Amino acid sequence: MTTRTTFLGLGAMGSALAAAALDAGRPSVVWNRTPGRARALGERGATVAETADKAITDDGVIVVCLFDHQSVRAVLDPFAADLAGRTVINLTTTTPNQARGLATWAAEHGITYLDGAIMAVPEMIGHPDAAVFYSGPEAAFEENRELFDLWGRSDYFGADPGMASLRDMAMLVGMYTMFAGFLHGAAMVGAAGVSAAEFARRQTPFLAAMTGQLAGLAATVDAEDYGGAGQQSLEFTEAALASLVTASLDQGVNVEVLRPVLDVVRRQIAAGYGGQGTARIFEELRKSR
Amino acid sequence: MTTRTTFLGLGAMGSALAAAALDAGRPSVVWNRTPGRARALGERGATVAETADKAITDDGVIVVCLFDHQSVRAVLDPFAADLAGRTVINLTTTTPNQARGLATWAAEHGITYLDGAIMAVPEMIGHPDAAVFYSGPEAAFEENRELFDLWGRSDYFGADPGMASLRDMAMLVGMYTMFAGFLHGAAMVGAAGVSAAEFARRQTPFLAAMTGQLAGLAATVDAEDYGGAGQQSLEFTEAALASLVTASLDQGVNVEVLRPVLDVVRRQIAAGYGGQGTARIFEELRKSR
Repeated sequence: MTTRTTFLGLGAMGSALAAAALDAGRPSVVWNRTPGRARALGERGATVAETADKAITDDGVIVVCLFDHQSVRAVLDPFAADLAGRTVINLTTTTPNQARGLATWAAEHGITYLDGAIMAVPEMIGHPDAAVFYSGPEAAFEENRELFDLWGRSDYFGADPGMASLRDMAMLVGMYTMFAGFLHGAAMVGAAGVSAAEFARRQTPFLAAMTGQLAGLAATVDAEDYGGAGQQSLEFTEAALASLVTASLDQGVNVEVLRPVLDVVRRQIAAGYGGQGTARIFEELRKSR
Repeated sequence: MTTRTTFLGLGAMGSALAAAALDAGRPSVVWNRTPGRARALGERGATVAETADKAITDDGVIVVCLFDHQSVRAVLDPFAADLAGRTVINLTTTTPNQARGLATWAAEHGITYLDGAIMAVPEMIGHPDAAVFYSGPEAAFEENRELFDLWGRSDYFGADPGMASLRDMAMLVGMYTMFAGFLHGAAMVGAAGVSAAEFARRQTPFLAAMTGQLAGLAATVDAEDYGGAGQQSLEFTEAALASLVTASLDQGVNVEVLRPVLDVVRRQIAAGYGGQGTARIFEELRKSR
């Protein structure tokens, strides 16, 4: 008898995960709070469970992809005793501390808990540019590697169940600030009648090329060598950012996502580091305010 | 007799521009307020002028790359009458309105003024991934195209002298917010003992891939169709950003460059748009606060 994989939660992402398993011929049981969502997967060969407890009767791993960590507790708590000895792979977005909390809860009930964080939009699942980060017991990662590799690249980040989420969230900060910066730039040229699409055609390759600067910033941060040669000074960056703020205000654009970068640079200059490299922004961000 | 190009200002960028001209065999006169900077270019074949007025005695174009727009006025003002009928190409970083102000000053003195904005670091000058934006009289752009193409790709943005700067500055906002977001993420994982270099190895291809999302955001903005299918909702983004803020604070990381993105998203949700696409951030940024 083939072990079945259970999928709890069939939003866009949960459905994509289950579909990839089904398409690879893996027997799967699917459940969603709203039953309609399961139908499409049923047509693809999934066994549709009407209730969460019916979905977890087999001995396969349980893949959870719900709204948030509270939903995970709400769905699993009633069956905690039934889940003893089973493996739960939680791909719901949680903070590192929430993942650790869920791991503690699982341990209290004899459940093996592996936390995962998905670096992809649902459409990317199954494509080589999707990545999923995992942390928790290494054996649980290795045992399910075949399933995981159906979704994209699988990266394991150690026994601390919070590390997959931490790695994921650290990666997303740059994405969201880049998106906000792009939309800010689009608003600047938009006020002069330039379409966002035209702006994106130039901004896309430019930002892609500028990601090539990150390794250099990182090397500076790791070496704490902000005085080394070839770095763009904080004073130069301050002048540039001040011009960007002025130009934005001249265009009637709200500068609230840009001005904090200038604020951070100015505090480092006020602390006496104006001649040092712009990577010193790191020193301002690493400390709580 | 071959017309010589005059370069005023030999900082890292000015030197790179002059060096590219010299390497292509173009006779060049160079001047810098601090004379030491000119020596290396002299060894490369440049005529070194001891004073700015001696640098502008020829009839060639004058390329200006100084600290800021005030420096441009301070250097050129004493010779304004001598410059009548000449062409000044100003590649100093200025805001769009500063560029327009310099163009007005030039027009008052019978000087042809072309404004330029450089999308590159000095090391990139002369390589195909460098770009320089120009705006002002089209004839001045076309007449000097051969020189410009030595520096990188040359893009002309029309007669309004402010447009090159506006296009440049709009592009740089995304770069600086991306850099700040990257350093924020590095601080998050750094607090858990992960090096910035290791983080950069994953973040670089991820952000480069995510620039592929910009065209879709732009299409949404241009169509003002924030309710269309396939968009990540503001509510989803709010939950994600709130988690990033919580996880950052848990790591002892200062959230001041990240939290404004969440604030903007929350205001759009409060305005009733929670189910609409995240590109609505544009609507919040396009209006002055």
